[in-house]
Amino acid sequence: MTRIPQNWSLKEQNRQAAKQQQRLFDRAGCLVIELLGSPGCGKTSLQEATLPALDRCGVLNGDMASDRDIQRLKPFCGWAIQIETGNRCHLSASDWGVLSASELAMVDWVFVENVGNLVCPAAFPMGAHRRVLLVSTPEGHDKFTKYPTAIAAADLVVISKMELAPYVDFDADFARESIHSIKPHLPVLELSVRQQTGLEAWMIWLYLQRSKHCQSEVVP
Amino acid sequence: MTRIPQNWSLKEQNRQAAKQQQRLFDRAGCLVIELLGSPGCGKTSLQEATLPALDRCGVLNGDMASDRDIQRLKPFCGWAIQIETGNRCHLSASDWGVLSASELAMVDWVFVENVGNLVCPAAFPMGAHRRVLLVSTPEGHDKFTKYPTAIAAADLVVISKMELAPYVDFDADFARESIHSIKPHLPVLELSVRQQTGLEAWMIWLYLQRSKHCQSEVVP
Repeated sequence: MTRIPQNWSLKEQNRQAAKQQQRLFDRAGCLVIELLGSPGCGKTSLQEATLPALDRCGVLNGDMASDRDIQRLKPFCGWAIQIETGNRCHLSASDWGVLSASELAMVDWVFVENVGNLVCPAAFPMGAHRRVLLVSTPEGHDKFTKYPTAIAAADLVVISKMELAPYVDFDADFARESIHSIKPHLPVLELSVRQQTGLEAWMIWLYLQRSKHCQSEVVP
Repeated sequence: MTRIPQNWSLKEQNRQAAKQQQRLFDRAGCLVIELLGSPGCGKTSLQEATLPALDRCGVLNGDMASDRDIQRLKPFCGWAIQIETGNRCHLSASDWGVLSASELAMVDWVFVENVGNLVCPAAFPMGAHRRVLLVSTPEGHDKFTKYPTAIAAADLVVISKMELAPYVDFDADFARESIHSIKPHLPVLELSVRQQTGLEAWMIWLYLQRSKHCQSEVVP
């Protein structure tokens, strides 16, 4: 284990811990996907729609309080861990300390749902291989330029609750332009869990990441 | 001016600065309302519906980036100030440093829209006389117990975007019970800016706060 100097900033300490954690995931051969987004943007619903189609999954869920989300997800995975963060506004890589080696060996996929917050979690990576930013249509197509750090941190943007787009005058083209003004070529998927649209593309994206990951990562 | 010891925590320093700032507001005879809530919950839209009905208003708006909101609000008030917070996830009482005494003397009402974030702003009061928490129906009726500090900090909860309630199966009774399990008797208003419903109750609440404030505050 690498020693982390005590005088490093919290962010730097977290970044190093995240790198170490990712090495553990690589050794265990599992792909870790982190979901970021505002409260109520549909992170848990997307997992409810995803997990039954995947084998050997684990879930880590962060909320300031309540275990409501993990109760929803537990039936679909090998293990489901709730972190109640109290006053902390994001998960940190050190939160993986609750996960045992045997639990890690049980899974091929791990989903991390960070605290509902479009600001702070972006600055504290968890060692996930891919970070997915969810933004729901009722939040507005003009929200993206206000949260540039979340876009910059993401490997994919999912625009969720597309079934509500007509009721909130959501302009998907404007949204895409805003996203790409911050991070050109960032992939964007539009979906509706309620109407079951766009989920095929999401599943294809997931399997593609797994395939790329297995090919490219050198597992020591 | 009271000196603030340097060894106080950031939160304590902010609390003291907020108290000092509130005294300045009291001397100027203006009522300050802070709006808290997730990205896209309708904080700016509610102000667009409110400001034209009020005289002598000022607005301070916090976002990590972009001046989009303040451009929307500027036509309706004496002054409108944008704070771009960069990586900061909330405004702080020291952000009032941008406001001059002459600007303060111009207004009877000040609205502060904090960074869209249901977590961090609650812990950093701005010296507002009342704090209003907005939660929109698409965020879900089960969100409240996950963000207890925001509820605890609020003087009023506004459930916004009620026009979308039927499409997202929003259970307003469940929401109220969750809110009151954290803070009993906290007033809750349901409204829709788009359909112009519930706005009378909101305006009555605002004028009631002004009336209470003028009666109870001792202006030194």
